[in-house]
Amino acid sequence: MQYTFASRMEKTPRSFIREILKVTQRPEIISFAGGLPNPALFPVKELAETAEKVIAEEGTAALQYATTEGHPPLREWIAERYKKRLGIEISPDEILITNGSQQCLDLIGKIFINKDSVVALERPGYLGAIQAFSMYEPKFSTISLTNEGPDVHELERVLVSDKPCFFYGVPNSQNPSGITWSRKNRKSVAELLEREETVFVEDDAYGELKFRGEQMPSMKELIPDLTVMTGSFSKIIAPGMRMGWICAPQQILEQAVTVKQGTDLHSNILSQRIISRFLANYPVDAHIARISAAYASQCDCMLSAIQSEFPEGVTCTRPDGGMFIWATLPKGYSSMELFERAIKKDVAILPGLPFYTDGGGFDTVRLNFSNSTPQRIQEGISRLGQVLREYLKETPELHAA
Amino acid sequence: MQYTFASRMEKTPRSFIREILKVTQRPEIISFAGGLPNPALFPVKELAETAEKVIAEEGTAALQYATTEGHPPLREWIAERYKKRLGIEISPDEILITNGSQQCLDLIGKIFINKDSVVALERPGYLGAIQAFSMYEPKFSTISLTNEGPDVHELERVLVSDKPCFFYGVPNSQNPSGITWSRKNRKSVAELLEREETVFVEDDAYGELKFRGEQMPSMKELIPDLTVMTGSFSKIIAPGMRMGWICAPQQILEQAVTVKQGTDLHSNILSQRIISRFLANYPVDAHIARISAAYASQCDCMLSAIQSEFPEGVTCTRPDGGMFIWATLPKGYSSMELFERAIKKDVAILPGLPFYTDGGGFDTVRLNFSNSTPQRIQEGISRLGQVLREYLKETPELHAA
Repeated sequence: MQYTFASRMEKTPRSFIREILKVTQRPEIISFAGGLPNPALFPVKELAETAEKVIAEEGTAALQYATTEGHPPLREWIAERYKKRLGIEISPDEILITNGSQQCLDLIGKIFINKDSVVALERPGYLGAIQAFSMYEPKFSTISLTNEGPDVHELERVLVSDKPCFFYGVPNSQNPSGITWSRKNRKSVAELLEREETVFVEDDAYGELKFRGEQMPSMKELIPDLTVMTGSFSKIIAPGMRMGWICAPQQILEQAVTVKQGTDLHSNILSQRIISRFLANYPVDAHIARISAAYASQCDCMLSAIQSEFPEGVTCTRPDGGMFIWATLPKGYSSMELFERAIKKDVAILPGLPFYTDGGGFDTVRLNFSNSTPQRIQEGISRLGQVLREYLKETPELHAA
Repeated sequence: MQYTFASRMEKTPRSFIREILKVTQRPEIISFAGGLPNPALFPVKELAETAEKVIAEEGTAALQYATTEGHPPLREWIAERYKKRLGIEISPDEILITNGSQQCLDLIGKIFINKDSVVALERPGYLGAIQAFSMYEPKFSTISLTNEGPDVHELERVLVSDKPCFFYGVPNSQNPSGITWSRKNRKSVAELLEREETVFVEDDAYGELKFRGEQMPSMKELIPDLTVMTGSFSKIIAPGMRMGWICAPQQILEQAVTVKQGTDLHSNILSQRIISRFLANYPVDAHIARISAAYASQCDCMLSAIQSEFPEGVTCTRPDGGMFIWATLPKGYSSMELFERAIKKDVAILPGLPFYTDGGGFDTVRLNFSNSTPQRIQEGISRLGQVLREYLKETPELHAA
């Protein structure tokens, strides 16, 4: 049987990560390829108690159809948290509960992207956003991500000449690079977006997982009317319930609610109530501090192993939070080749290619530190160092070029 | 601030139901306007026990990221159920777990609809499907729904001349009409679809809630390679967890998985595991039989109240399952006017307009019987009868015309 699919199906990248993760799921593999939070830090016992209580005590309300916008106490908690953490005033009416932050990206794509609209992205940019937006068949214009944040001159050129329907970025501990935009960079980016009246989609999946350095102002603080924020409980509670949110100016939020309703009516109300009650009854700050501390030590363990094990010429970022370190091989070396070589030593990395919409990034590698113990990080980086040294030694002509 | 949204936002109908339901939520209102299952039949105690056990015993697996396709034992249960209930052989690999059956419609729209593609629908057609598909900016071609099912001549004309990317229908106890397609009609529709090689989207939300008449063959049985089925746990367990599924031929399912991944990665794994374990540990057939019996008695109560209370000239369908009765006013009378008059007597109905994509249906009314007790059905229909008699008496010129 020959089926005819919509044209977007030709443009939707098959998930590269998904294919790679299939190879890397054997238990003997030390995998830095995925992006899973550390399950040892999930509040399993607390959530089990809470789930039973929510159904038993909140009864049919936790099981019946619910409003599209989301559970009011959960929306209030999120608004309060923005005030406490970032000092910004958000009304609960500006919050829509979604199925994880991935759904935020889908809904935002639906609201803003026409076929052939331009979407502006960091380069490298978050793969999940590229996948979500691709379904609405935009053109991507990318802006190089420096250690300070997006290159301001490139951004100006893209905003002025390509007129993107929005600029999407991850200012805190970006996936894949681990880079956090500097204060100065944020200010410059905000000024440009304001001047060109361009919407910014601020993906803040990792804002709560900051383990060093000063708190930066969110873009929402700098240009509130132009900023749509996305957030997630996946990294601070657990990802399996798929709970995230969009925080947007009222006019945009109304569109998001209309679209969400046609997409799946509302998010799982049982899980919304479990999370809401968990947040009310347990010391959340201490819980998040525990996760951040663990990730800080896993990150530092990986950084110091890289320092001692990787050959000269391989560079990497030094994240202040989040879950990823980003490495760049010497010019001409291929991260796909590195993947092939490393997997033979039972170590998995993620080649950086799928984070580029222009076919670049052949020499880049994403390394996840959140889902491995320090022992396995040490062992895995040591093996990877050996693989890298062999690769560089066997093909020195690349290194010379 | 003036934002620029994608063109689809102009075409997406604001939810008419949603606006109406806001008016009808006051507790003194007897509402036949909504589409809620009866919460008294939710297995609250069983789900509370199950939820606690799933988290405590299945631990981090119930809280971590999971596969896009869905929880394997749940996919197996669904495949087994198709065999048992409909006698059709489905592989678990042909099942994708979704956020309720509303998400099925969104994913199917994404896979098949280009801007200006034709989608064929019953007339009246399910509002939720119209909303979901509208986001992909199709044109709708509608096929009159007779008491036997879709008009076969109209369907042939639409298939041949409009070449729809698919035909969407609800063959069992349709929403809004309550009509079940006859055996002969199914065969004719299947033959036409096969001849024209057109995909059929078989929405089977109410198949399990059949309370009289013989079991009809599913379209999936008649034209398996051309049929995409959608299913839901909302009506047989509870809707708040938003759990449904797509059952499709392998090639189509692969596209659905790709699209689902970009849309929200995967469905809530905690709820998938709760439902899976509930299905394994409790007598599901008895539970479903209890729901069907309750709805049968609520339906019959409404039908006999209509018989004795409604004035001559108002006709209605006699459903064999599902949750809705469909009434038609005498020619020229308006269901919006009826809504306005009825709400003053604290009774809510749903005018049929949003089930039409061509501006028709002014004289149609959807009445929900699943979410009211027999006492309230009796009282509500009695008031509605009085309102109808007054309306017909005050404007007899319409009746004469």
